[in-house]
Amino acid sequence: MLGPRVWASVRQRLSRGLSRNVRGKKMDIAGIYPPVTTPFTANAEVDYGKLEENLHKLGTFPFRGFVVQGSTGEFPFLTSSERLEVVSRVRQVMPKDKLLVAGSGCESTQATVEMTVSMAQVGADAVMVVTPFYYRGRMNSAALIHHYTKVADLSPIPVVLYSIPANTGLEIPVDAVVTLSQHPNIVGMKDSGGDVTRIALIVHKTRHQDFQVLAGSVGFLLASYALGAVGGVCALANVLGAQVCQLERLCLTGQWEAAQKLQLRLLEPNAAVTRRFGIPGLKKAMDWLGYYGGPCRAPLQGLSPADEEALRVDFSSNGWL
Amino acid sequence: MLGPRVWASVRQRLSRGLSRNVRGKKMDIAGIYPPVTTPFTANAEVDYGKLEENLHKLGTFPFRGFVVQGSTGEFPFLTSSERLEVVSRVRQVMPKDKLLVAGSGCESTQATVEMTVSMAQVGADAVMVVTPFYYRGRMNSAALIHHYTKVADLSPIPVVLYSIPANTGLEIPVDAVVTLSQHPNIVGMKDSGGDVTRIALIVHKTRHQDFQVLAGSVGFLLASYALGAVGGVCALANVLGAQVCQLERLCLTGQWEAAQKLQLRLLEPNAAVTRRFGIPGLKKAMDWLGYYGGPCRAPLQGLSPADEEALRVDFSSNGWL
Amino acid sequence: MLGPRVWASVRQRLSRGLSRNVRGKKMDIAGIYPPVTTPFTANAEVDYGKLEENLHKLGTFPFRGFVVQGSTGEFPFLTSSERLEVVSRVRQVMPKDKLLVAGSGCESTQATVEMTVSMAQVGADAVMVVTPFYYRGRMNSAALIHHYTKVADLSPIPVVLYSIPANTGLEIPVDAVVTLSQHPNIVGMKDSGGDVTRIALIVHKTRHQDFQVLAGSVGFLLASYALGAVGGVCALANVLGAQVCQLERLCLTGQWEAAQKLQLRLLEPNAAVTRRFGIPGLKKAMDWLGYYGGPCRAPLQGLSPADEEALRVDFSSNGWL
Amino acid sequence: MLGPRVWASVRQRLSRGLSRNVRGKKMDIAGIYPPVTTPFTANAEVDYGKLEENLHKLGTFPFRGFVVQGSTGEFPFLTSSERLEVVSRVRQVMPKDKLLVAGSGCESTQATVEMTVSMAQVGADAVMVVTPFYYRGRMNSAALIHHYTKVADLSPIPVVLYSIPANTGLEIPVDAVVTLSQHPNIVGMKDSGGDVTRIALIVHKTRHQDFQVLAGSVGFLLASYALGAVGGVCALANVLGAQVCQLERLCLTGQWEAAQKLQLRLLEPNAAVTRRFGIPGLKKAMDWLGYYGGPCRAPLQGLSPADEEALRVDFSSNGWL
Repeated sequence: MLGPRVWASVRQRLSRGLSRNVRGKKMDIAGIYPPVTTPFTANAEVDYGKLEENLHKLGTFPFRGFVVQGSTGEFPFLTSSERLEVVSRVRQVMPKDKLLVAGSGCESTQATVEMTVSMAQVGADAVMVVTPFYYRGRMNSAALIHHYTKVADLSPIPVVLYSIPANTGLEIPVDAVVTLSQHPNIVGMKDSGGDVTRIALIVHKTRHQDFQVLAGSVGFLLASYALGAVGGVCALANVLGAQVCQLERLCLTGQWEAAQKLQLRLLEPNAAVTRRFGIPGLKKAMDWLGYYGGPCRAPLQGLSPADEEALRVDFSSNGWL
Repeated sequence: MLGPRVWASVRQRLSRGLSRNVRGKKMDIAGIYPPVTTPFTANAEVDYGKLEENLHKLGTFPFRGFVVQGSTGEFPFLTSSERLEVVSRVRQVMPKDKLLVAGSGCESTQATVEMTVSMAQVGADAVMVVTPFYYRGRMNSAALIHHYTKVADLSPIPVVLYSIPANTGLEIPVDAVVTLSQHPNIVGMKDSGGDVTRIALIVHKTRHQDFQVLAGSVGFLLASYALGAVGGVCALANVLGAQVCQLERLCLTGQWEAAQKLQLRLLEPNAAVTRRFGIPGLKKAMDWLGYYGGPCRAPLQGLSPADEEALRVDFSSNGWL
Repeated sequence: MLGPRVWASVRQRLSRGLSRNVRGKKMDIAGIYPPVTTPFTANAEVDYGKLEENLHKLGTFPFRGFVVQGSTGEFPFLTSSERLEVVSRVRQVMPKDKLLVAGSGCESTQATVEMTVSMAQVGADAVMVVTPFYYRGRMNSAALIHHYTKVADLSPIPVVLYSIPANTGLEIPVDAVVTLSQHPNIVGMKDSGGDVTRIALIVHKTRHQDFQVLAGSVGFLLASYALGAVGGVCALANVLGAQVCQLERLCLTGQWEAAQKLQLRLLEPNAAVTRRFGIPGLKKAMDWLGYYGGPCRAPLQGLSPADEEALRVDFSSNGWL
Repeated sequence: MLGPRVWASVRQRLSRGLSRNVRGKKMDIAGIYPPVTTPFTANAEVDYGKLEENLHKLGTFPFRGFVVQGSTGEFPFLTSSERLEVVSRVRQVMPKDKLLVAGSGCESTQATVEMTVSMAQVGADAVMVVTPFYYRGRMNSAALIHHYTKVADLSPIPVVLYSIPANTGLEIPVDAVVTLSQHPNIVGMKDSGGDVTRIALIVHKTRHQDFQVLAGSVGFLLASYALGAVGGVCALANVLGAQVCQLERLCLTGQWEAAQKLQLRLLEPNAAVTRRFGIPGLKKAMDWLGYYGGPCRAPLQGLSPADEEALRVDFSSNGWL
């Protein structure tokens, strides 16, 4: 299914990847990542200009990199070519020293492999692969291990596991994570479930592996750091990038009291732009805070005036607006 | 997004549809439908030859039609062109007097509209549109009403709502169904949730509309008929087509005692090929019962020997093997 | 723990029970039962006078009997002596030819046995035993089989299993029901879960046993009859007793079309007095329809004016008010 | 319902309580508490001798106090008089400088008030009141606020809210907690849900109140400390008391790296004695580690040999056996 041109590119990237890991270490993914939103015009076309503007502004923060085509990027609403074009544009405008982690998960193993290879071709440094989930009743450890092993075997770039039960109704079982952590091309995991006891258990049971865990939300970022996670993919970083990076710094330098104070003030705005109001809430907050948010693609609807007001309170009552 | 050639075809089909409904009645979808499986070769390619053979055999039963690209058809694992090609092939080989209902649901409204129009072009008589679900936290009544209204407005062929919470984690709220039942191009609903009280409530609250409800599984088919549903989309009909049609006949002719006896004997094999062992279980049973089942696409795995044995018992203990 | 006087009474009742079953058949529990509410005064004392008045009115319908101290009876809010006194009073005023089924479930096996024996002493004909549930994470088939077997071994009167997941978060697994159905002193089951496929499966897998299934709500009563259940314990029968009995009659005489019409008109009022507004809703409707409803014990709160209005619409829009 | 003797005692205790809070501060509940198990003989009688022996051993650790009749104490299996007698005995043998927090929750508000007063009489310093839950569909914020306000109004000793969704299927909504935190006799909350983002939000939104949060399990103890909780009620402290107290000390003195190391080693044994194997697992581990565990009351069953082995591995693989 993959033509010769693709595989040539893959080999090239593979060798680049290998040269980066001369000591046999896996890629280090520690740090903070905003999961970039996809801006749309009023006609629901991808607005690449606004995407670039947002990236320029986000590029000024000390992020480790950007997650492109994560759940926050409305990836299920984009065509395959849009998914690749967005990643390609981000690659062009983002700072060279940062990582581009692209979401490449699809339902079938084969499509995921193909999307993964394509993401590598258009410039992704790593892929983040959401669990297949439509047939979640059959997605047991054996099926998930088979899926991720195949993807990681064939991916020219490192693979990050991605578990987000609020969207998928499915968690990667801990035993499956432990098995997969031993794969040379699986470097870590983003866990968005919010169960920090589970995150800690994964840290504990993969402690002899070269495997890193990222929190999937700023809501439990401090707790995740305290338990051994190395960073986070945080929707809120799209609007409060400085603050999320400051929280990282406070945790990494052991200033836990100050970290706690800041963490608490981020809880409500974070819940507002994730669980409570979703991407429409995040985009509205972006509009307020100097970025381009704009509309979502249907069927996601904009906020009602009442919801918008509640969103504003979640920011203002914590001093962010 | 839709080119002029597409719309010409759409208009043509629309006028065909209109001529079919001279009395202003919506399409009648009452009856039994097997949700056709997609056969794959050992190399995971779609095996169109086996698809045609299965259809020839299924064509001998008094089904009302065929559902193609439902959940049982592994539609999330197919490319867009494979989805269309499968529907096109089924159209060619299936009996002319039966309905072809094609699954055209995608995550975005726009993609669903485009897939719907394409399905009409390749010969579908109606589409069955699964709820968008990745952002299920935001898929409230307003969002779903907006989505389905747009799709139905732009679809050249009738639309059937499709609610399957086991896969999507989401149900279309009853109030949304009631609103949507008034749309001239929304003819009915397939409900796979198994809550017959809900099915009855939908029947009751849409009783003044021209709107039909289909049970999404043979497990609650008798109960659904008893409460006013008009048919079913039944995975088990892929292997026990005669029996499912017989159950329909017994219900429609008021032979409820005989219907009960038959219904009870279908429960375990039905659970085995749906909830318990999924599509891998159904395809294995097809292999036993004269059809081509074959492998699923990854990440769906085949049955273990123990599961296969349990599947066999579920059929044999009820006299079907 | 049980004194000699108790056991004497138990033995006496056991022999009465045995004489009733000369042909070796278990007690026949087929029919409709209202789960009687417990009336309280404004001071939250049990109002035995109002209880008797309600019973006199309910006694005019062709019920098979009464369930006393079911979930609708607010049993968790009563002391042990109140539970027994209520049953004793009902025994005195209810028609002699009807069955008194008393809820005797407690969390521990020992307490359940003692309450069961006491219920027999004060006049219950059978007990309905809800699953223990506080430690539901450990209430697997083995634990539930152990519990019910012990209770049934020591109960002087027949035992009915009682599964109500909306309150307990727990279902008795089908395999446990099948095992328990073979116990000579376990006569049947009340299933309030509403999953009629499960009810049908239980009917099917206990078909060689002397075991009867009752629907736990009128919401799925017709469907349950159609699948082999023999009756129902229906909260709505406290206010629409004639209609629920009529639905039973229509089902038993094979008048399924008329049954369907009636069933559909009962859905909304039934949902209103169970899932939607709970016991406060039921008691409010009793106040409207000629019974004494009155307040619930705290922490159950009365309805808001808006809820009360919605409750009224659920009855009036179906022609019952 | 409460006789004059009771109220005399209540008044006396109230004045004792007041004298303890001369500065108008609520009781300080910060620290670690084992939720004490209830030992039973082979005949399922409470074994008060073994209870005292266990308490003597537990008394050597720097706990803040003991929780008696929590979920770990099998309180739903005890009679009211057993519940009080157990608390009374613990009061007699436990060190005078520690707090005795007694579980006094019942389903009805009235019963909870009476049990609370009785617990105060037999020597409890505070009560921990689990949410009523059988009618959880109606236990919204209004009902819970009404319930806890009434209990706190009438309790002679401070009240701790107790939310344990794994057992009750119910959480106290954050807005209800915030309202209740303002009550002068409600001093804090034990949250066993494990959602530390929720715990942090409660800390944040009650920051202007005199209100303390305790983690309900050692699984998220470090994270809870890091986010502003002040202690924990930890089942594991019944067997690894020194280690849980050491984890507290490391957190309180800011030794977060050492704390993390210890926290991670406690995860698996903790999960084993709570979620995975429940009280039977905890009691088995007590038997191994120098305490009296013994049997549970039915319907709780002992561990199978395979489960026992898995329990052992969860301890030994982390160096605790």
